Amino acid sequence: MTAVETVNRQVRLAARPVGLPKPSDWRFTEEPLGDPPHGGVVVRNLLLSLDPAMRGWMNEGRSYIPPVGIGEVMRAVGVGRIVASSSPAFAAGDYVSGALGIQTHATLDAEGLERSGLVRIDRRLAPLPKWLNPLGMPGMTAYFGLLDIGQPKAGETVVVSGAAGAVGQTVGQVAKIKGCRAVGIAGGRAKCEFVVGELGFDACIDYKAGSVREGLKQHCPGGVDVYFDNVGGEILDTVLTRINRKARIVICGAISQYNNTTPIKGPSNYLSLLVNRARMEGMVVFDYADRFPAAIAEIAGWMREGRFRSREDIVEGLDRFPDALNGLFAGENFGKLILKVGEDG
Amino acid sequence: MTAVETVNRQVRLAARPVGLPKPSDWRFTEEPLGDPPHGGVVVRNLLLSLDPAMRGWMNEGRSYIPPVGIGEVMRAVGVGRIVASSSPAFAAGDYVSGALGIQTHATLDAEGLERSGLVRIDRRLAPLPKWLNPLGMPGMTAYFGLLDIGQPKAGETVVVSGAAGAVGQTVGQVAKIKGCRAVGIAGGRAKCEFVVGELGFDACIDYKAGSVREGLKQHCPGGVDVYFDNVGGEILDTVLTRINRKARIVICGAISQYNNTTPIKGPSNYLSLLVNRARMEGMVVFDYADRFPAAIAEIAGWMREGRFRSREDIVEGLDRFPDALNGLFAGENFGKLILKVGEDG
Repeated sequence: MTAVETVNRQVRLAARPVGLPKPSDWRFTEEPLGDPPHGGVVVRNLLLSLDPAMRGWMNEGRSYIPPVGIGEVMRAVGVGRIVASSSPAFAAGDYVSGALGIQTHATLDAEGLERSGLVRIDRRLAPLPKWLNPLGMPGMTAYFGLLDIGQPKAGETVVVSGAAGAVGQTVGQVAKIKGCRAVGIAGGRAKCEFVVGELGFDACIDYKAGSVREGLKQHCPGGVDVYFDNVGGEILDTVLTRINRKARIVICGAISQYNNTTPIKGPSNYLSLLVNRARMEGMVVFDYADRFPAAIAEIAGWMREGRFRSREDIVEGLDRFPDALNGLFAGENFGKLILKVGEDG
Repeated sequence: MTAVETVNRQVRLAARPVGLPKPSDWRFTEEPLGDPPHGGVVVRNLLLSLDPAMRGWMNEGRSYIPPVGIGEVMRAVGVGRIVASSSPAFAAGDYVSGALGIQTHATLDAEGLERSGLVRIDRRLAPLPKWLNPLGMPGMTAYFGLLDIGQPKAGETVVVSGAAGAVGQTVGQVAKIKGCRAVGIAGGRAKCEFVVGELGFDACIDYKAGSVREGLKQHCPGGVDVYFDNVGGEILDTVLTRINRKARIVICGAISQYNNTTPIKGPSNYLSLLVNRARMEGMVVFDYADRFPAAIAEIAGWMREGRFRSREDIVEGLDRFPDALNGLFAGENFGKLILKVGEDG
């Protein structure tokens, strides 16, 4: 065990970023650590998930969850260990996951427990980083977005952008398990080799090396039945020119557009939806929360059977949060980006 | 009866238009009229439907039907009267509808009958112009697009652009019949008054008079559940900011964009689909052909009961085709635009 800590170190949102977040948009703070509030817990945060969606949470305005307030600790999902509990639901030593925030400790009262969606996780089922990747929100997003919105049928072609990223990894592997042809789009040869060689996708198009349009022609000779879009922008527009009749486009994110200071680029080729009687549909993973346990069990089963792999890119140290997050938007991470802020055990 | 005619007058596509079609993109021709080919018919064309989709048919490239070839008679759906038949399916005097082309007569062989989708129509059910509007392709597009793709539920709010146009008229009235709030978007006070006063929409937003955004706030206080889009462009983008969770956007057309010489404006606000778990889906009316008879019977029933009205804007004379078509893109027509090229009876 580590020595008893008495300080919680935090990263707070200091200003609403314009474009890519700047160092001055963040403020590092420290607070004394106390006992858990009545009915609550103190969590030692271990691993924090850095996600493209964070950029949206920093903006003012209506979305699927309220924005992070100026001066508030930056919102983040993470895994940690309960260090002290006054809640009947948790005991010291339990491993948990939930919205813990970019800080070394999360002190949650009963209401905070509810709000953070804190749940116990079973460390024997998989190592902790996996709980922020295939068994966490990215995995759940991929699983429900692909299966419920994309509705792939065996023999169909599924294309996913951000293929080496947290969501993309799972989308392609689930597509393969369901009998589909899985084609990724990723940036750089190493990522593409990983996606094909390690994860077993049928092909991967390197958007930094050549034309995505030509890549789609080559690797999706029968057209695209399901496109799982994590990036938006030009790539979405290009895939729209290659979709089949009754194709389904899952709108999961648009990482290429999140730091725009000009209006988002809408898909110019959206009338391909008309010509092809196709569909473009959005999804938010929280809607499927009651089905997470079943999905986790299924993915963990595939992992155990050796049919499913995943990769995390772990950056160490709370101080590195601002740079690591910006690296995510530049596509610098290779695998699910995780910030390690504490030692397990 | 008119005197026996010996000449077929035609409008042919002379060149692929760039932007709005120019007079030189058309060529007027005449051909002698003969007897029907074996197994075929000669039709005296009476009314021809002028539709936004025609602009797409003039462009080269992959779509839901092949483009009109250079030198070919311009494609158009119309109604006419059989003047001579060598087909067992039709007799002289029958009223028919199908792809007759922009010409005074259609001479169809057995294969041409098939290709034009020629069917007999029952003139006693409704006057001929209605067979190009609520009982024709616009009505079928509205009916199946709204009910099958939009899936409105009683109590929901349905918004339709091009509300005074051929498709829009029917969309709003069917929405009302299904127990929805129907809000139109149209250009000009006269059209808006018609849509509310004559057709019974709950409200209509005049996009030429003020802000569509403010209009939506005022007339859709509960948000938008179904948006039936005929126009694309800025209006689609604005409606996207007002959609409800699980909203359905039916992509039927994008008349504001058809004559663009620059790329089509994609919907910048498409990520509203994500936030709202909403869907944008295209449709092509031909897919529902086997269900047309039932839909025609239902709409004709509503007309008989006085629950359903429609308005046509009839321009007379084959020579006026080029101007009438361009007027459609400028929103000059008021009701379904029809070109009259022959006298009935």
